[in-house]
Amino acid sequence: MSETSFFSDMLQSIADQGRRLLALGPREGAATLQLQDRGGVEKLCETLLSSRGEASGIAIAKAILDRWDGFDDRDRAAFMRMLLERFGPNAEALDRAIDAHRAEPSERTAQALHAAAEPRRQELIRRLNLAPAGMSTLMRMRETLLRLKADDPALGAVDDDFAHLFGSWFNRGFLVLKPIDWTSPANVLEKIIRYEAVHEIRDWDELRRRVAPDDRRCFAFFHPRLIDEPLIFVEVALTTSMPAAVDEVLDPGRAPIRAGAASAAIFYSISNCQEGLRGVSFGNFLIKQVVEDLRRDLPEIATFVTLSPVPGFAAWLGREIEDDDSEAIAAEDRAVLAAVADKNWPDDSAAVERLRPVLTRACAWYLLNARNTRGMAADPVARFHLGNGARLERVNFLADRSPRGLRQAHGMMVNYLYELGDIEANHEAFVGRGEVVASSSVKRLVKPGKAAVAAPGAGRKSGKGADRKELAP
Amino acid sequence: MSETSFFSDMLQSIADQGRRLLALGPREGAATLQLQDRGGVEKLCETLLSSRGEASGIAIAKAILDRWDGFDDRDRAAFMRMLLERFGPNAEALDRAIDAHRAEPSERTAQALHAAAEPRRQELIRRLNLAPAGMSTLMRMRETLLRLKADDPALGAVDDDFAHLFGSWFNRGFLVLKPIDWTSPANVLEKIIRYEAVHEIRDWDELRRRVAPDDRRCFAFFHPRLIDEPLIFVEVALTTSMPAAVDEVLDPGRAPIRAGAASAAIFYSISNCQEGLRGVSFGNFLIKQVVEDLRRDLPEIATFVTLSPVPGFAAWLGREIEDDDSEAIAAEDRAVLAAVADKNWPDDSAAVERLRPVLTRACAWYLLNARNTRGMAADPVARFHLGNGARLERVNFLADRSPRGLRQAHGMMVNYLYELGDIEANHEAFVGRGEVVASSSVKRLVKPGKAAVAAPGAGRKSGKGADRKELAP
Amino acid sequence: MSETSFFSDMLQSIADQGRRLLALGPREGAATLQLQDRGGVEKLCETLLSSRGEASGIAIAKAILDRWDGFDDRDRAAFMRMLLERFGPNAEALDRAIDAHRAEPSERTAQALHAAAEPRRQELIRRLNLAPAGMSTLMRMRETLLRLKADDPALGAVDDDFAHLFGSWFNRGFLVLKPIDWTSPANVLEKIIRYEAVHEIRDWDELRRRVAPDDRRCFAFFHPRLIDEPLIFVEVALTTSMPAAVDEVLDPGRAPIRAGAASAAIFYSISNCQEGLRGVSFGNFLIKQVVEDLRRDLPEIATFVTLSPVPGFAAWLGREIEDDDSEAIAAEDRAVLAAVADKNWPDDSAAVERLRPVLTRACAWYLLNARNTRGMAADPVARFHLGNGARLERVNFLADRSPRGLRQAHGMMVNYLYELGDIEANHEAFVGRGEVVASSSVKRLVKPGKAAVAAPGAGRKSGKGADRKELAP
Amino acid sequence: MSETSFFSDMLQSIADQGRRLLALGPREGAATLQLQDRGGVEKLCETLLSSRGEASGIAIAKAILDRWDGFDDRDRAAFMRMLLERFGPNAEALDRAIDAHRAEPSERTAQALHAAAEPRRQELIRRLNLAPAGMSTLMRMRETLLRLKADDPALGAVDDDFAHLFGSWFNRGFLVLKPIDWTSPANVLEKIIRYEAVHEIRDWDELRRRVAPDDRRCFAFFHPRLIDEPLIFVEVALTTSMPAAVDEVLDPGRAPIRAGAASAAIFYSISNCQEGLRGVSFGNFLIKQVVEDLRRDLPEIATFVTLSPVPGFAAWLGREIEDDDSEAIAAEDRAVLAAVADKNWPDDSAAVERLRPVLTRACAWYLLNARNTRGMAADPVARFHLGNGARLERVNFLADRSPRGLRQAHGMMVNYLYELGDIEANHEAFVGRGEVVASSSVKRLVKPGKAAVAAPGAGRKSGKGADRKELAP
Repeated sequence: MSETSFFSDMLQSIADQGRRLLALGPREGAATLQLQDRGGVEKLCETLLSSRGEASGIAIAKAILDRWDGFDDRDRAAFMRMLLERFGPNAEALDRAIDAHRAEPSERTAQALHAAAEPRRQELIRRLNLAPAGMSTLMRMRETLLRLKADDPALGAVDDDFAHLFGSWFNRGFLVLKPIDWTSPANVLEKIIRYEAVHEIRDWDELRRRVAPDDRRCFAFFHPRLIDEPLIFVEVALTTSMPAAVDEVLDPGRAPIRAGAASAAIFYSISNCQEGLRGVSFGNFLIKQVVEDLRRDLPEIATFVTLSPVPGFAAWLGREIEDDDSEAIAAEDRAVLAAVADKNWPDDSAAVERLRPVLTRACAWYLLNARNTRGMAADPVARFHLGNGARLERVNFLADRSPRGLRQAHGMMVNYLYELGDIEANHEAFVGRGEVVASSSVKRLVKPGKAAVAAPGAGRKSGKGADRKELAP
Repeated sequence: MSETSFFSDMLQSIADQGRRLLALGPREGAATLQLQDRGGVEKLCETLLSSRGEASGIAIAKAILDRWDGFDDRDRAAFMRMLLERFGPNAEALDRAIDAHRAEPSERTAQALHAAAEPRRQELIRRLNLAPAGMSTLMRMRETLLRLKADDPALGAVDDDFAHLFGSWFNRGFLVLKPIDWTSPANVLEKIIRYEAVHEIRDWDELRRRVAPDDRRCFAFFHPRLIDEPLIFVEVALTTSMPAAVDEVLDPGRAPIRAGAASAAIFYSISNCQEGLRGVSFGNFLIKQVVEDLRRDLPEIATFVTLSPVPGFAAWLGREIEDDDSEAIAAEDRAVLAAVADKNWPDDSAAVERLRPVLTRACAWYLLNARNTRGMAADPVARFHLGNGARLERVNFLADRSPRGLRQAHGMMVNYLYELGDIEANHEAFVGRGEVVASSSVKRLVKPGKAAVAAPGAGRKSGKGADRKELAP
Repeated sequence: MSETSFFSDMLQSIADQGRRLLALGPREGAATLQLQDRGGVEKLCETLLSSRGEASGIAIAKAILDRWDGFDDRDRAAFMRMLLERFGPNAEALDRAIDAHRAEPSERTAQALHAAAEPRRQELIRRLNLAPAGMSTLMRMRETLLRLKADDPALGAVDDDFAHLFGSWFNRGFLVLKPIDWTSPANVLEKIIRYEAVHEIRDWDELRRRVAPDDRRCFAFFHPRLIDEPLIFVEVALTTSMPAAVDEVLDPGRAPIRAGAASAAIFYSISNCQEGLRGVSFGNFLIKQVVEDLRRDLPEIATFVTLSPVPGFAAWLGREIEDDDSEAIAAEDRAVLAAVADKNWPDDSAAVERLRPVLTRACAWYLLNARNTRGMAADPVARFHLGNGARLERVNFLADRSPRGLRQAHGMMVNYLYELGDIEANHEAFVGRGEVVASSSVKRLVKPGKAAVAAPGAGRKSGKGADRKELAP
Repeated sequence: MSETSFFSDMLQSIADQGRRLLALGPREGAATLQLQDRGGVEKLCETLLSSRGEASGIAIAKAILDRWDGFDDRDRAAFMRMLLERFGPNAEALDRAIDAHRAEPSERTAQALHAAAEPRRQELIRRLNLAPAGMSTLMRMRETLLRLKADDPALGAVDDDFAHLFGSWFNRGFLVLKPIDWTSPANVLEKIIRYEAVHEIRDWDELRRRVAPDDRRCFAFFHPRLIDEPLIFVEVALTTSMPAAVDEVLDPGRAPIRAGAASAAIFYSISNCQEGLRGVSFGNFLIKQVVEDLRRDLPEIATFVTLSPVPGFAAWLGREIEDDDSEAIAAEDRAVLAAVADKNWPDDSAAVERLRPVLTRACAWYLLNARNTRGMAADPVARFHLGNGARLERVNFLADRSPRGLRQAHGMMVNYLYELGDIEANHEAFVGRGEVVASSSVKRLVKPGKAAVAAPGAGRKSGKGADRKELAP
């Protein structure tokens, strides 16, 4: 349909405009304006907020962002403090709006109150976004802000404003799912190498093995204003069975199959790319749309399942072992588990066989019963997939022998199953009632009485790791 | 650069997704849900606001919009009333937030107040936008709302929320300028015919004459989510001189020149296309970017000037004539002006010659001195171009002999000049000081003492016509 | 796949190059060279043939084509005579090559002979094709040549060379099938209006009815070097039954159905666009690929059938009526057939009922038995579809009431059925054995003894009309 | 212009068609046909030549190519012999055609003779090209043929037919110049790594340094039917001066400059990619078009110059040294030149200084005076650039220290200058009069009397190396 290509042309223009504008170069702009002190930036920000001519607005926005690019760490912390202290709501105006609303509450007065309570930095950030590379600079700005917030929690108020605006700009309606393969641009592919957070991609040859064969797929979300930057991506293996270990998937010597011969799609790696978008959730949409696209293109595929890490398991297990009252670990298992202290246990076949039932059982317990402080499933990856409506399908022993896999989860991995017909019900069960939907085989691993499904808040121990980069699988 | 085509591909996907989702068809969805009473819609809206699963959110949003599509006028009025009355801010929560803020004012309490004061319909509209054709249905929804608001001003509160969200979604950063020519898709071109609001395009042959010759150009802004819908467009004639009448431009028998031979670009028609986006301003950006693009492609072009209607002139003049104290009209001119009462005056050469100086002078007075109730230039088209930083360059007698041209402006037209180097200063003069920047020849038309530049608010009579579709030229 | 968009970019470059080069303008080039006499053209042609620098070759080719563009009819005839007389094979070199081959026949000497026997104009035409718009000018050149050949048959030798080269340049491997719809560029759509040769398209509204509704499709072949020029196109109606009259298809008041609800695809118009490509056959490929594409996109469609004119029927019938020995027309039918002399017979219901069986029978006889001088089916459209492997499925009385339909075929139309499984066998039967494959119902229309399938060459009368523009359906 | 994107869409369709057809897979087709003996192939070829149904033609062509893919070396040699012996011209028909022409020579009889003398394999190859991947298989077929021809010169007749057809299919009008950069598809970029024949690209990091920086460019020609296969590419460095050594260009530690700051474009590597297209010349067009494109995009660039190897120099010098009568080498230089026998001479600064004038002089002599057996410049790279109209600008001592550079040319490199205004004249001088156009500084290197410009055929010694893969620079 030429309508879409008409549309494509349009977007080419966007990119061209951007490129043209950027050709002016960041530093030149700054130099021209010769505003180099921090006070200058505050003044620029005030000017931007009060500017009415939009062309000059763009130039001022660009000048501010260029200044930011040149800032050192101290300047940046000061800039964020300035946003907090000088660009909050106007206190007087807010007081007046409250008085007016109290005097005579109405739609209008509420609306005025709403406007008066909005931190002025929201409009400021909106206007900064008009600069050619505004969105990408703002994203990097928030990366810095997240770091600063750790030491200066008051900056959380500023972060809330960023998060609010990012949530609206990265609205699902603006995101585009793109297959990534060996014909994708190198500058996009190198970012796949860089951002892969679950199973490292060492070099271009390994990348090629991940995206080029007919039985390997990769999909990413992009945003129209960030054309070279994947936001999140998932790697998929097309197989004839549900793999129990990641080596089956990553083995460089394996013989590829034809995509048409596959009956299962394995989501074996999901990575968020942009730290600056933390908290803006895409993964949910991503998996569902990839499932939909694969079903359309490869109707023979009947099973959609992850092969996922269990990043919180080892830490949780360590705490349980030290807790003499642990319900999770039977006394007789405690001794066996001591073996994991030796890093080389996977090479000791006797230890392996002793640990197999014990670790498997403990992992099932962890996934079914452990809760964080908010009463949610303790494991962040479990939380992600269960929240998406997947089912905890199988727990795999010694499935990831990489140093990270052993360190985080004693080598355990999990299959979460996406059964399209059940997704809404599963989602409802998990989000609404805190119920971990699991296959009967996983449930059987945990002794009755202990496997009782926990009500929200009923869990005992909590993992931290809420916002992990490798949120899934 | 393949990066842009990589990006184009992306956007093709958006369109394809949209198309696929839309293939379900609006009415089917409605039928499936079998929620046909208005009460049902309110419940659906509440469900949408409280939904957490995003896939189900999209389905509910779609169901609501499908319901809207099926509504008659009474239903639609009721729906808007419902948005006003049931989806404002939560009064209790707002009270609590005020109390908390008064108790201990802080960033946090202000933020909570901001959130509590936000009408719930804002989030509702955001979520409706997730439906596949959400944006275009919301735009049509606002068209209706604007009509309803005329009779029911309380709905202005609802409209403010639409306007706020549209302003953010149609942020300049998302708009794309596209040339429109004879190779453009027919479904886009037919909208140019339909939306042309200044000089009517009667049929495809006339359209071809407007967009196909080498010395004719047309540019439109588009939004990525409304791929077939121009938002605003401008028609441009490339010439060797500044035309004094629109017939010179539209004459079907004229001999086209090579674009490379042109020294002037005449903006002779600007039309807003989407009534539902009223108040979201694009024209400013449009003209500036078209100037920039033309300068790049055709460096020989030195003059960028409009040939614009004067839509408020005849009405203003009528009032002045009846006002015996009018400063604008000299006593001796009053008699001459009576001649315009005869519709056929342009064919009476004696009348024409008598009217020429008088109408020209009156029109210059109107443009230089007449102000609306807000103290702005009375003529909406003048307001638009002067606000953009153009200069009032020339007043043209009997320049538009079309029935509309005679009815609205007794045939007068105006050239506004865009001189890139002066735009910021002119804009500042007009917006900041209410000064109408004009060429000396226009200023000379008005007797000294009368031509004194009016301070804001100093004008006397006002035209209405603020939000005209044919805002310019 | 970004590979295809990478590829698309490439082709954009072609177009851009072409445009840039063309920007020089045809007449300027000619002016610069100031070679305006015919002798000059011959010299330019010799120079082009001997040129070794390829950039200069392109310039000379362009100069020759520009000259051609400026030629009047006499000049053009002289140019073609020149190609015939001065740019045939080199007689001496050919003689030498024959001698050498006779002396010692070998691969090498045969090859040398091949080269020496090639008319020099072949290489000349190849080099002319290097000019930016070479291919399209050469195509128009051949249009002229075909006209000239009618009066000057010796030019057939020149035409053979054009035909040979066009056959290679328009090799199926280079053609691209494109759907044409209401989102197609206006400059392509206006050519659909212009080239439609079967059922006239009166204006843009009618065009819209042909390409915009969901149950109407149009497909065309394009060549990469002629990007705005459809070579051949077919119009398709998606229906729920095989239509017996073209009004069912073209009725402006009909209610469109959803494409997904259709069970049959009706090819109701096929038009060749480029007279200059006469003899280069695309229609065969076109129908087969459209069938394939429709089957893929709309798997519910089970029947692929034409609704075709019978352009040779009326002329043939006229001759048969005057032939007292006609086997085709029974004596008793002769009187009835006289009624068609009255143009208004379709409005006379008695005449209609008398003619119905007689015309239907005669038409079936014509299609089954009439042969041209080469022993092929007499009707050109029948020849086209039967040669493609279609089956003569049904003969429709009073199916085309347009003036042309009545004049050419007394209103008769035919359905040819494309049954994918039978195409090769049908094709073989027709091309190999001259057999007209027909449904039993059509065969039954003709009395046994008369319907005997004719061997090639066995037919009696012949229509002319071999190379009709509206070759089908 | 949406016309080009309309066009792009088209080409996407080509690719899609190809992909769909290819999805059947080569081996499956072969299996289905179960024709595995060589005799079978001959029969298939005869069937293809006589087939009239074009769909079946495509299937047969595919079957033959699939068979070829499965052939071992012996089979392939036999296949080529078959083409030679069984698919030459029809001897009887040729004899008859000669008789007819001798009897009555005319355009018609010459044309018949032309047809009869054409080897039947030409039409066979044309029809093989209709198979989906026909063109690429035929190209690989010719690679094999070129190898076989070395041992079996009679196959030259078959190769001539391949070369003739490739020359027409790879007509300049079908080629597209594409910039290659870091946003190009990985599957294209990996071919740049593979095919680079002048200065090896070791890995993706080195590739990135060659194509990503703003002052590095790469351009390749592509053919629409071979979308992932560059045919020839050139690497360009944008600099502020003419480099005297390739290390200046390739140094990984160099600081890139802005493209806009460059005044010179250095063509430092040109590689042909397709051995199967040997003899089809693209380089000429490539350089000229790249010059044109760079001039348009970067008007500041005034100098276009190569930094080229001298691949025949060392071999020629070796022969001269052993020739006591050499005019090229003065007696006193002979002793100095002995130093190059030690591979490590570039590290011996005394040797370097002694060799500098001697090698430089000898290289200048070689380039100005040495001729091959056909009287052309002996050095293949010199022949290429001088034939293109470049000027021998500068001879650079110790400019390429790579093992290959030292082995082939004792480290010498040459700058050839492309001065647009002189190209035609230089080309004429070289091709027409055998004159090596050189700068006066290069000419001064050679003693008068010896530097006398050689007439064609006047050169003495000849290099071989005519068809080198790294033909340039």
